[in-house]
Amino acid sequence: MPELRKDPIVGRWVIIATDRSRRPIDFPVEREPPRAGICPFCPGQESKTPPELLAHRPPDGPAARRDVPGWSLRAFPNKFPALMIEGNLDRAGEGVYDRMNGIGAHEVIVETPDHNKSFAQLSEPEIEGVLSAYCDRLHDLKLDRRFKYVMIFKNHGSLAGASMEHAHSQLIALPVVPKNVSEEMEGALAYYRYKERCVFCDIVRQEVRERTRMVYENHDFIVLEPYAPKFPFETWVLPRRHRSAFEDCTKGEFAGLANAMRVALRKLHRALDNPPYNFILHTSPFDHRENPHYHWHIEIMPTLGKVAGFEWGSGFYINPTPPEEAAKFLREIGD
Amino acid sequence: MPELRKDPIVGRWVIIATDRSRRPIDFPVEREPPRAGICPFCPGQESKTPPELLAHRPPDGPAARRDVPGWSLRAFPNKFPALMIEGNLDRAGEGVYDRMNGIGAHEVIVETPDHNKSFAQLSEPEIEGVLSAYCDRLHDLKLDRRFKYVMIFKNHGSLAGASMEHAHSQLIALPVVPKNVSEEMEGALAYYRYKERCVFCDIVRQEVRERTRMVYENHDFIVLEPYAPKFPFETWVLPRRHRSAFEDCTKGEFAGLANAMRVALRKLHRALDNPPYNFILHTSPFDHRENPHYHWHIEIMPTLGKVAGFEWGSGFYINPTPPEEAAKFLREIGD
Repeated sequence: MPELRKDPIVGRWVIIATDRSRRPIDFPVEREPPRAGICPFCPGQESKTPPELLAHRPPDGPAARRDVPGWSLRAFPNKFPALMIEGNLDRAGEGVYDRMNGIGAHEVIVETPDHNKSFAQLSEPEIEGVLSAYCDRLHDLKLDRRFKYVMIFKNHGSLAGASMEHAHSQLIALPVVPKNVSEEMEGALAYYRYKERCVFCDIVRQEVRERTRMVYENHDFIVLEPYAPKFPFETWVLPRRHRSAFEDCTKGEFAGLANAMRVALRKLHRALDNPPYNFILHTSPFDHRENPHYHWHIEIMPTLGKVAGFEWGSGFYINPTPPEEAAKFLREIGD
Repeated sequence: MPELRKDPIVGRWVIIATDRSRRPIDFPVEREPPRAGICPFCPGQESKTPPELLAHRPPDGPAARRDVPGWSLRAFPNKFPALMIEGNLDRAGEGVYDRMNGIGAHEVIVETPDHNKSFAQLSEPEIEGVLSAYCDRLHDLKLDRRFKYVMIFKNHGSLAGASMEHAHSQLIALPVVPKNVSEEMEGALAYYRYKERCVFCDIVRQEVRERTRMVYENHDFIVLEPYAPKFPFETWVLPRRHRSAFEDCTKGEFAGLANAMRVALRKLHRALDNPPYNFILHTSPFDHRENPHYHWHIEIMPTLGKVAGFEWGSGFYINPTPPEEAAKFLREIGD
């Protein structure tokens, strides 16, 4: 008998097909041939990207020089941005409709100079460097009063929407709080009003106790398969400690997060043979202060199926792999 | 300058990339080789599917015989259903979570006996037959008190999630109202409370007057590109007359809908070279009666891009084709 399960935060139901459970081997990953040509994200090609906003370079190097090789991480505006950084919002109506100018920041964070390394292959200090770059860019963009939210995400593999092979994350600063973010905030607030507890803290406590959906844990973070995952092998990384905004983490916590992310991504890499995936940082909008109901976290979603008419129409997802089976598999595989 | 546009029903913002507008030729469709082997949806293979629930056969034929060739349309339970028809819901909690048994109906409607014909190639009477089959199955499933909603949809092409080549629609009856449906109902109700008008009726009036996003119209239906489309060439078919439920249409209206659907799908077929697509019937949940705020309609979404981390995280969509340009193109191309 398949099971209907409800996500306790946003109230989304999913169908977990327990009878015809699909294991990792049932998700063959289409191999992509390496792309030919010069990669503009590689060292030596800095002139092919807009000038850098931030770079990590060795402290003893020629620090004054920008846009030259020698970096271990480099962030710059997207050359083909979805939104424009210059201008006013100019909100206006058009009859029944509402519009505004497409103002926003769209940035690229190249995670390593090595064209052949994926995020899952980075060392923990390298991942910590990426996380601290997210944090620095968040703090900088918070100063721009036009923006209400910064979405930080990664597309790995062309099936997951990556147009460049070289490992990179992206960041989009938006003049409105996106619908999915408001929904998550409102869902968490509704739970808090009813229970006077954070729903994510309740999830962490229950999962640590039950262990059936746990994948990994360290001092500060847990890695789990959520109870009502949209997709097979969807994996969440949650801080044990309640905190509403990612950028308020301590240096020690970033080290723990780098460890948890590395283990989670390496296990997925091994289990699913380097699958295409997205990960998304879920954190508070700029105008929210630390509060008792929202708990930042990261969601990783391997791209193992297609979204079709039923999912588009209903917002329901049919997931052929129970999270308990995915978690068992990921616990047992090495990292 | 790109534009941010808000969907007036559910409040979703989209980014319309006006500067680097993509025309139909910029969306190459991956050709799929025809599949080998016997198709269980073809006439003569009726024993390979579960027994039929409904079939259209000529009135002078051997009407008593079921599951034999001679049909022009045939509906039966999905052989690999996402939900099971037998059983009780057994709603239960699991700590912070909620679950119930995966009870529901999952049916297939084979739209034509001809393996090589797509929906866009059917005649208007054939399409009318498909619409009346939707209607008959809706009326039948409404009698089952366990169900709250029936989602009717079509996946065309494997990129759009179709696992069978032979033209068919699907129907899933659900014991809960799906999130996307409640959201649309609630958005329409909020608009009605504020304006005392139906938001869809307002859209129809404005689009018929402005004409920039209109694709086609007949006596009872209009075909348009919505103001804030998630995807390039997203196309909606709306009845002019306010009505909350699809199954309350008159026979004359079904003829008009068959004409509008045929024209819309043929124009998309020609413009985009037989693209993969989904269409979804948006209609009222079973417990809603005719009301002044909700207006049923059909949304058609060609599968022309990939959903990536930004869309998953934000619910924002980046659409590289302004609907005004898509509408102009579709108006000018023949059907």
